[in-house]
Amino acid sequence: MKRNILIIPGDGIGQEVTTWGKQVLESIAQKYNHEFVFDEAIMGHTAIEATGDPLPQETLEKAKASDAILFGAIGHAKYDNDPSAKVRPEQGLLKIRKELGLYANLRPILLFDELLDASSLKPEVLRGTDILFFRELTGDVYFGEKKRNEDNTFASDLMNYHRYEVERIARKAYEAARTRSKKLCSVDKANVLETSRLWREVVQEIAAEYPDVETEHMFIDNAAMQLVKNPKKFDVVLTANLFGDILTDEASQIAGSMGMLASASIGDGTGFFEPIHGSAHDIAGQNKANPLASILSVALMLDIAFGLQDEAKAVTSAVADTLKAGWRTGDIANSSTPQDKILGTNEMGQKVLE
Amino acid sequence: MKRNILIIPGDGIGQEVTTWGKQVLESIAQKYNHEFVFDEAIMGHTAIEATGDPLPQETLEKAKASDAILFGAIGHAKYDNDPSAKVRPEQGLLKIRKELGLYANLRPILLFDELLDASSLKPEVLRGTDILFFRELTGDVYFGEKKRNEDNTFASDLMNYHRYEVERIARKAYEAARTRSKKLCSVDKANVLETSRLWREVVQEIAAEYPDVETEHMFIDNAAMQLVKNPKKFDVVLTANLFGDILTDEASQIAGSMGMLASASIGDGTGFFEPIHGSAHDIAGQNKANPLASILSVALMLDIAFGLQDEAKAVTSAVADTLKAGWRTGDIANSSTPQDKILGTNEMGQKVLE
Ligand SMILES: CC(C)[C@H](C(=O)O)[C@@H](O)C(=O)O
Ligand SMILES: CC(C)[C@H](C(=O)O)[C@@H](O)C(=O)O
Repeated sequence: MKRNILIIPGDGIGQEVTTWGKQVLESIAQKYNHEFVFDEAIMGHTAIEATGDPLPQETLEKAKASDAILFGAIGHAKYDNDPSAKVRPEQGLLKIRKELGLYANLRPILLFDELLDASSLKPEVLRGTDILFFRELTGDVYFGEKKRNEDNTFASDLMNYHRYEVERIARKAYEAARTRSKKLCSVDKANVLETSRLWREVVQEIAAEYPDVETEHMFIDNAAMQLVKNPKKFDVVLTANLFGDILTDEASQIAGSMGMLASASIGDGTGFFEPIHGSAHDIAGQNKANPLASILSVALMLDIAFGLQDEAKAVTSAVADTLKAGWRTGDIANSSTPQDKILGTNEMGQKVLE
Repeated sequence: MKRNILIIPGDGIGQEVTTWGKQVLESIAQKYNHEFVFDEAIMGHTAIEATGDPLPQETLEKAKASDAILFGAIGHAKYDNDPSAKVRPEQGLLKIRKELGLYANLRPILLFDELLDASSLKPEVLRGTDILFFRELTGDVYFGEKKRNEDNTFASDLMNYHRYEVERIARKAYEAARTRSKKLCSVDKANVLETSRLWREVVQEIAAEYPDVETEHMFIDNAAMQLVKNPKKFDVVLTANLFGDILTDEASQIAGSMGMLASASIGDGTGFFEPIHGSAHDIAGQNKANPLASILSVALMLDIAFGLQDEAKAVTSAVADTLKAGWRTGDIANSSTPQDKILGTNEMGQKVLE
């Protein structure tokens, strides 16, 4: 199989972790006799520094022309401390999501037995947890009209959904639920928000098309609570952009660390694969970042974008074996991890490759 | 001291739990020689059934005329399953918050040592946690304009903040931070939302007035994650209405159960005291609800509304002693709790009174 893969390292630790994602892709190509052709492009703070634009036209064109994209991370403390900055790294990510029509963000919460102890949650609460989030990614308050009045006394963002936006992601989530344990939980705030009431109505309608799937509706505040209390009760979780952003970061603690979570953004065209962690500028360039989320994003790419299930499994197994052998990066180590088992980014990437 | 207290039981378990809040108030009055005059009023589903209006005028007038309000809970499954219902219980709660100008919702995450084991989080992660949330309560996407187009293909809610709304709650939070460990974390989504950028700018300005308080700004997704990972790192948390709704429910798992968390809503006039738990219709009328959150709301009322610190401490100590003696309601029991130590609502209320 021949495929064109665009690597967008982005900001902070993005460069370090995508390096390993790419190496894993190269090793898979060799072993399974595929031809992966790589190209690279800039986005975010890195792109602002180079061109003034967080998503240069060239990056967007390369993205559209590729078969899949491996992305690193975005963001820089500079902008976080300056809320009045007009040009911001995150605009690049939001724009590429919109331009590529990446309306469904899949975030599997994959729990490796070896990491049961790395979590702040009790192992007996965690054991057996297996959640697949469907986060809507191109609508909601993320993309609604933003206003600020001239004397800076008022600001607003329009939270909104169109019926078709809810329908298409709901269908994707129900299809997935069918192949899993046939349980779907839709999360909203329908007791307060009109957007959520429309969301709930549409999900109720789509639910009727999937009578074999058991549907539950839950308020976001309750869901944020239940996810800590009893994560096992969730299987497929379907939710809006903002609520999905919050819940999946929270759920990263189930997997032991943000450094373990991969995500796939899909929609109308090219798929986009990225860790859910951020740019982590505090540890960037120090060989400390966990490359496993980027490597697991590669597994999602192989599976979802290329339909290469065996290859995807080989990657996930390599990660599992590395963990089984006791190797850890700092974020997934705990007080009982021997010092000589704690690796840097590169050493961890190397172990998985082997 | 003479005070007029309005009891609004609301829906579901509200009646059962406020009964015990009231009895504790009566016992405090007797012991400390105060005169508490009680009145009662309806709100929510209960009020819709009786009058068609979730917040009848009479309730609002009584509320404005009282010195403090003890509220139970609101909501009913009937409306949750019918997103198109025009009249909804929650409108009563939102309206009274707005009408009484209750812009600051204080939610202390009080951790009783005895309940360390009731949580899904590891005791070593929890021990020493003491968080005070300041949730803005009368602005944000809760109160912005709601729209639905006629053919039901689109819905929206306006997320918005005025500068003065951020200023006044920020000042309250900073004042509280001064009396605690002088650390404040403001939570927003300034990398995406204009509302959050205004929020962050204003908090930065107010922060300059409190140079003795250390300020941190955190994105909501990160905060939802950190709260599970390392709750001890938080002290005063300041956030907007929607984010506060989500984070405080999530944080309830730190305290072992939603059934333990009290809140105080304050602002321009009469204060409003309520558990953060909901109406829990599934267990209503079964003598199963945990009355401790209502009783702890009474402690907040005595402290914040009446300035009666000793009386407030007496209530909190009574709760602590009851837990120390091993008594539990179902929600805070765990597998090692002896069956004969698990009490119903009334028995638990009685133990605290004693
Ligand atoms: C960087 C930011 C804009 C982004 C989001 O909020 O969507 C990130 O948190 C994510 O979850 O991918
Ligand atoms: C019942 C609901 C409207 C309310 C809210 O969202 O504010 C509740 O969840 C709360 O936290 O008090």
